[in-house]
Amino acid sequence: MTPALRPRTVEVCLGERSYPIYLGAGTLAAAGDAIARHTKASHAVVVSVAGVGRRYAGTLLRSLRQAGLRTTRIDVPDGDAAKTLRQAARLYERLLASHADRGSVVVALGGGAVGDLAGFAAATYLRGVAFVQVPTTILAMVDASIGGKVAVNLPRGKNLIGAFHQPRLVWIDVATLRSLPLRARAAGLAEVVKAAAIRDAGFFGDLERDAERLLALDDVALLPALERACAIKAEIVSRDEREEGLRMLLNFGHTLAHAVEFLMGYRKVLHGEAVSMGMAFAARRSEQLGCAPAGTAARLCALLERLGLPTELPDRPRSAYLAALKVDKKRRDTRIHYIVLRGIGRAEAVPLTAAEILPARAGGRVPGEVEV
Amino acid sequence: MTPALRPRTVEVCLGERSYPIYLGAGTLAAAGDAIARHTKASHAVVVSVAGVGRRYAGTLLRSLRQAGLRTTRIDVPDGDAAKTLRQAARLYERLLASHADRGSVVVALGGGAVGDLAGFAAATYLRGVAFVQVPTTILAMVDASIGGKVAVNLPRGKNLIGAFHQPRLVWIDVATLRSLPLRARAAGLAEVVKAAAIRDAGFFGDLERDAERLLALDDVALLPALERACAIKAEIVSRDEREEGLRMLLNFGHTLAHAVEFLMGYRKVLHGEAVSMGMAFAARRSEQLGCAPAGTAARLCALLERLGLPTELPDRPRSAYLAALKVDKKRRDTRIHYIVLRGIGRAEAVPLTAAEILPARAGGRVPGEVEV
Repeated sequence: MTPALRPRTVEVCLGERSYPIYLGAGTLAAAGDAIARHTKASHAVVVSVAGVGRRYAGTLLRSLRQAGLRTTRIDVPDGDAAKTLRQAARLYERLLASHADRGSVVVALGGGAVGDLAGFAAATYLRGVAFVQVPTTILAMVDASIGGKVAVNLPRGKNLIGAFHQPRLVWIDVATLRSLPLRARAAGLAEVVKAAAIRDAGFFGDLERDAERLLALDDVALLPALERACAIKAEIVSRDEREEGLRMLLNFGHTLAHAVEFLMGYRKVLHGEAVSMGMAFAARRSEQLGCAPAGTAARLCALLERLGLPTELPDRPRSAYLAALKVDKKRRDTRIHYIVLRGIGRAEAVPLTAAEILPARAGGRVPGEVEV
Repeated sequence: MTPALRPRTVEVCLGERSYPIYLGAGTLAAAGDAIARHTKASHAVVVSVAGVGRRYAGTLLRSLRQAGLRTTRIDVPDGDAAKTLRQAARLYERLLASHADRGSVVVALGGGAVGDLAGFAAATYLRGVAFVQVPTTILAMVDASIGGKVAVNLPRGKNLIGAFHQPRLVWIDVATLRSLPLRARAAGLAEVVKAAAIRDAGFFGDLERDAERLLALDDVALLPALERACAIKAEIVSRDEREEGLRMLLNFGHTLAHAVEFLMGYRKVLHGEAVSMGMAFAARRSEQLGCAPAGTAARLCALLERLGLPTELPDRPRSAYLAALKVDKKRRDTRIHYIVLRGIGRAEAVPLTAAEILPARAGGRVPGEVEV
């Protein structure tokens, strides 16, 4: 093992709810031991989706049994469309059928959607049981699995029902990324770029140096990049668990991303792609508002485009975007905490109305380049 | 106002989640001001059931509006049978329709069931919004509204899905008890007796002195008794928010109560009645196990009977009780933390199997008096 591939640990510091994120390459078979040590559970329920489960659940379940736990495997439907109260209810029934009790741990094995659904079930079953994240997508590794946000969707909007339920640990094995399609890799890297853009100019430079190697899943570039992105998220969550201030910075690119997902339908655009569009828009808007120096948006867009990510919003009427912004749940009264860049590596929240985020232009369409 | 009727405050000490319980007589019209002060909310959603809502929602909504809040009233179906995921989903939709956001507070006006359902919705809507309890039954005042336990039922068992979501305040106006039927008053007083029995022999003596006046809702006896019961629950919850030790004592009488409710059907027996049966059984069992001095059970049963409460378990096969105990969610592995009395005013948890709680006797029925 080269030094670059040594196992790494990032700590999320939340007092008695603190937990480690372990990162490594080819480490899945060691997860059971860590889960047993951190949870003291006697029973593990591995919640996964069919494809991921077929590839990795066997190794994980075996390692849990070797660590002395009774195991249950539950597969749930894949994708964001399965994050519903109805699926949560089915999961509860299967937890009951498996005799899951307060000595059980729910282990989410998969991407962000399965982590959100399994995490919501873990947060609410018997008023909360232990929870562990074993993310198998870049997006879930650097974002969804850290910070304790778990949720299901309502017909009228995403993530409207949920909880803050911190995992006991996050176990990242980059070898599980091998089966991830290129498009999903790129989308996941959008959140890595976000972490650098809002918090760490040096890291952003590293990403510019390594973009193609990251996309090719070169572990020597990927492991330190994921560690850095996890550390940024962990630091922000540690300082603001319940999203009362600093944590809002993680919404960089997300205000418009949610609107894009709402308008396009969640199946047509990947979350990371929508975030890429939203970040590019926000960076341009940051320059127009006089927050960021000229060239900030161009530099961000250049990196995103090297990763194969979109940087223009879909062409929809401005009125549609304005309506979509109004279902965003972060709204309190009429202003939105919109995240702007101060430059590469620095962000801040600015209270803006939807109309200020999306100023009108001739034709009433949302422009790639907004005139002010 | 006589000195006995002065407003009283009990504090639940939980660090940054601390909150007050305000007790008074005829104070409902002042609730809005306190809710505004403690939550800083701009919008209040009063969740109630039809009967209670008709009597008291008008006063509460008016006081909230006078305090500057926008208000919404939502009625939910009455009773424990309405504590379902389906009703929670309907409540979410109505919260969305009312434009409830993170600046909203959910105010539960009613008994334990509406508090549980509204509290579960508040705990999970937008990952948690502010919550206030305005209990209108004795049971809810001294037990359900304090401590942050909120939940809905699954077909296979009560309170299996839930959260710990502390209210921002609890507002108790004993004048709202006037419309409570005698049977429900008595059932509520069972939890008052429980508080005294597990924690405060002096208070138990006061209840023996005042039993009939409590049942008649004589405020001069009732207000200090409710304050004492609230203070006992508050002290226990303050020292053990997540039910990891001390809080288990509050389950005194509840292990068998849950079994009785399960076997009888939740409509035939009130929760407090089942708790009364369970406490009487546990007190007798405490003597048999050599934990409590002789006469403890007789003294407890005498008080319960003066309140018109049942002290014998329904006649069902022992096998039915054993099966019912196994669905109790407090089980971790095979032993149950069964709460015994050490005497009037002192309780402790003893790990027992279901068979040890319910020893066999000729005929295989559960006896009122168990032979050992």
